[in-house]
Amino acid sequence: MSELLKTREQKKEALKSLLLRIHEGESVESLKKEFREVLSSISPLEIPIIEQELVREGVSAKDIAKMCDLHVELVREAVAGTDELEEKGLPDGHPLKIRYDENREIMKDAEMLNLYARTLATTKDERMRQEILGVLEEIVGNLRKVGFTHYNRDEMLTFPYIERRGLTAIATVLWTKHDEIRFMIKYLAELLRKRNEMPWEEFVERLKNKAGEASFALSDMVFRENNIYYPTLKALLSDGEWKAIRMQDDEIGFYKVNPPAWDPGDEVKPLHPWEIDPELSAEELLTLPREVQEALRGQPLEFDRTELRREGDIDLGTGYVSVEELKAILEALPVDVTFIDRDDRVRFFSPGERIFARTSSVLGRPVQLCHPPKSVHIVNKILKAFKEGRKKEATFWLRLGPKYVYIKYVPLFDKNGNYLGTLEMTMDIAPYKKIEGEKRLLDWKD
Amino acid sequence: MSELLKTREQKKEALKSLLLRIHEGESVESLKKEFREVLSSISPLEIPIIEQELVREGVSAKDIAKMCDLHVELVREAVAGTDELEEKGLPDGHPLKIRYDENREIMKDAEMLNLYARTLATTKDERMRQEILGVLEEIVGNLRKVGFTHYNRDEMLTFPYIERRGLTAIATVLWTKHDEIRFMIKYLAELLRKRNEMPWEEFVERLKNKAGEASFALSDMVFRENNIYYPTLKALLSDGEWKAIRMQDDEIGFYKVNPPAWDPGDEVKPLHPWEIDPELSAEELLTLPREVQEALRGQPLEFDRTELRREGDIDLGTGYVSVEELKAILEALPVDVTFIDRDDRVRFFSPGERIFARTSSVLGRPVQLCHPPKSVHIVNKILKAFKEGRKKEATFWLRLGPKYVYIKYVPLFDKNGNYLGTLEMTMDIAPYKKIEGEKRLLDWKD
Repeated sequence: MSELLKTREQKKEALKSLLLRIHEGESVESLKKEFREVLSSISPLEIPIIEQELVREGVSAKDIAKMCDLHVELVREAVAGTDELEEKGLPDGHPLKIRYDENREIMKDAEMLNLYARTLATTKDERMRQEILGVLEEIVGNLRKVGFTHYNRDEMLTFPYIERRGLTAIATVLWTKHDEIRFMIKYLAELLRKRNEMPWEEFVERLKNKAGEASFALSDMVFRENNIYYPTLKALLSDGEWKAIRMQDDEIGFYKVNPPAWDPGDEVKPLHPWEIDPELSAEELLTLPREVQEALRGQPLEFDRTELRREGDIDLGTGYVSVEELKAILEALPVDVTFIDRDDRVRFFSPGERIFARTSSVLGRPVQLCHPPKSVHIVNKILKAFKEGRKKEATFWLRLGPKYVYIKYVPLFDKNGNYLGTLEMTMDIAPYKKIEGEKRLLDWKD
Repeated sequence: MSELLKTREQKKEALKSLLLRIHEGESVESLKKEFREVLSSISPLEIPIIEQELVREGVSAKDIAKMCDLHVELVREAVAGTDELEEKGLPDGHPLKIRYDENREIMKDAEMLNLYARTLATTKDERMRQEILGVLEEIVGNLRKVGFTHYNRDEMLTFPYIERRGLTAIATVLWTKHDEIRFMIKYLAELLRKRNEMPWEEFVERLKNKAGEASFALSDMVFRENNIYYPTLKALLSDGEWKAIRMQDDEIGFYKVNPPAWDPGDEVKPLHPWEIDPELSAEELLTLPREVQEALRGQPLEFDRTELRREGDIDLGTGYVSVEELKAILEALPVDVTFIDRDDRVRFFSPGERIFARTSSVLGRPVQLCHPPKSVHIVNKILKAFKEGRKKEATFWLRLGPKYVYIKYVPLFDKNGNYLGTLEMTMDIAPYKKIEGEKRLLDWKD
C-alpha cells in the first residue's frame, strides 16, 4: 500500500511540474512527449485519482482543464491510435471533422466530471465544496447538451444513410447507448438538485459512483464513434451526402465547437438518404472497420431502395405528399384554417367538422363580404396592419357553449417578404385547459 | 273606449267560434274565407291583443298555434300578395321553396312570441305565469336558431351569387338586419334568464316591449325576403346555382323544416359563385322586383369577374392554393405535424420553427428507426391498433421547460376507409392554459 502511494506521489509530482511549465508558457506540443512518458507508467484508472489530488492541493480548474486536454489527447492516441489518421485530410467544417472536434470536448468534460466528483468526496472544506458543486453543476449542465446536439445529429442525420445501406444494427446499438448516457446525465442533474434532501455522505458517494459511470460511458462512446462509426461513415458517404448532412447539422447545433462553413462545391448536389444508391460494393465493404465487417458477417445486407417520390406527389420542400394525403392531413388538424389571398379573397378552408362552418360558396368571396357588416371596419384595420407589417398577429377568444374558441390571424409572406395573404386559425382550447401532469409514450396502454 | 272594447269583444267571440270549429275538425281551408272577413275589420296591431285574451281565457297553446298558422297565412296574403305566386312552380326541396317554408315557421313563432309576452304581462296567476314563461323560453330558444340556419344560409350561400352580380348592397342591408334580430333575440334570452334579478313588473314590461320589437323585426324580414330578396334570386339564379346551394344548405341546416332531396338532374352541373357569368342582361334586370330596380337605378353595376383558379394551383376540394401559399400555411400552423405513410415511412413534416426539430434526412425513413430503440415497441403497438381500426387516437403530454407539449397521433383514411398513414401533431398548450375571459373582434385595437 505504501509502495503504491509512494509511486503515485512521484507521478503526481511529475505531472505537477509539467503543469507548472505549461502555466509558465512552455508549449504543450513540446511537453507532449514528457507527458506521454509519465502517463505511460500510470494505469488509466489511476489518472483521475491523481488529478483529483492535484485539485485538492489547489491547482486551478483552468490548469486542470489544460491537463485534461493533454490527457485526452494522449489517452486518445494510446487507446485509439487511429482517429488522428482518420481526421487527416478532412477539411475544416467537414461534418466528420466537426464530430471529431466535438468528441475532444466531450472527452474533456467527461474527464472533468469524474475528477471533480471524486474530489468533492474527499473535500472537507465547506467553501471548497460549494465551489466544486458549482463547477459540477456547470459540467453536468453542459453534458446534457451532448444529447441534444452531438448524439441527436447522428441519430437524425447520419443514421439514415447507413440504414439505407442495411447497417441498421449499428444505428440501433449506438442510439440505445446514447439514451443510456442521456439518462445517466439526467440522473446526475437531479442528484445535484436534490442534494439537500439526503445526508452529505450518501450524496457524495452516489455522486462519485454515478459520475464515474457517466464519465466512462461518455468516453466509451467517443471511442466507439472515433474508431468504428466515423471510419464507417468516412468509407461510405460521398461528398453529396456530407453536403446534405452539413446543411442540417447547423439546424440542430453543435457541442462546444463553432465550425466554419464547408461546401464541396456547387457542382456537388446535396444527396438525401432517399436519393442515394444504397448498395455496398465489395471494395467499400473491405474499407469498413474490422468491427463492422465482423458484425456484418453471416447476415445478408438488406439495402433499402424505397423510392420516396411518387407520380403526382406535391413537393412541399419538407416532404412529398399526394393530394389525397394532404386533404386527410388538413382535415385531421386540431385547428380549422381559412386562407385569404393577397387580394383579400377566400382561397381555401380546411375540410371536415369545423367550429365555424365553411361552405364552398365562400371561395373567391372578398373577406369583407364574409363578415357581419358591423365588424367589417375591424377586419380592414387588421388587414391593413398586416400588409403594412405593423402587426404579426391578431388573437381573439370567446366561449361558445362547452367550447372555448381561440382565433388567431397571421399574415403570410413569401421568401422575399411579399405579402401572400392572411391565415385564420380557429381552435377549441377547452380540452387543453383540462390537461394536467404528464402522460408519456411509455405510459401507453393498448 | 267602451265602443272599442265592445268591438274587440265581438271580434274575439267570432275568432273563438272559428277556432272551436277548427278544433272540432272543420277544415282550415274552408274557414279561411270567414277568418279573412273577421280579420279584415281588425287592425294588425289588435290581433295579438285578441289572441292574448284568448290565451288568458284558457284556449290551449295548440289551438293558438293553429290560429297563428291561419293568421300568418292571411296576413301574408294581405300584405304580401305575391309570395304564393312566387312559390308556384317551385318543386319540393328546391332551396327557394325551403326558404319560403321556413319563413312560414318563423312568422308563426314571431307571432307566438309577441302573443305570449303580452299575455304574461296581464296574467296574475302564478302557475299560469310559470307555464307561459316555459313556453316563452322555448320560443326564444327556437328563434335563436333562425340566425344559425335560415339567415346563415343566405349570408353564406346565396349572398355570394348576387355579390358576383354586383348587388352587394342588398346583401349588406339584409345581413345588418339579421344581426339586429340576432341581438334582439339574444337580449330576450338573457332577460328571461335574469328575470329574478329585477321586480316582476319591470321584467314583464321590458319583455313585452322587446318581444314586440323582435316579433316585428322577424316578420319584417320575412316580408323583405318573400317580396324582394327571393324574387330577385328567382329571377337571376340558374338550376346549376341552386344545385350548388342545395348541396350546402344541408351542411348548415334548416329552421323547423325537413325538406326532401332535390336535384335538377345529373346533366346540370353545380355552379359555384366563382364559376358563373355574373353579367346581368337587360331582360334579367327587368324581371327584378321593383324595389331592387329602384335601388340599382343611377349606379353602375360592378360585376365581379375574378377568376378563382390560377395556373398551377392545387385543387384541395375546399379551395385552390399555390404550393408557395400551402407551404406558408403549413409553416404558420400552431401545431407541428409529421406524416408517416401507409408503409410507416416519414413522408412529410411541417416546416419552420418546431418543438421537436425535424430535418429532411428523416424523409423516407421508417418511423421505427426514428425513435429511441427503447420505445419502438410502443410505436408499433399504436400503429397496429390504428391499422386494425381499434384506436382512433393516441395522446401524450409532457412538460419541456416553459412549454407544455401535447402530442396527438391519429390514423388517416381515404374516402373508402383505406389506411393512408398516421399523423403526429405536436403543440405547446402552455399559452392556452393562461387564456381567461373573452376578447372579441370588436375589442381589437390597432
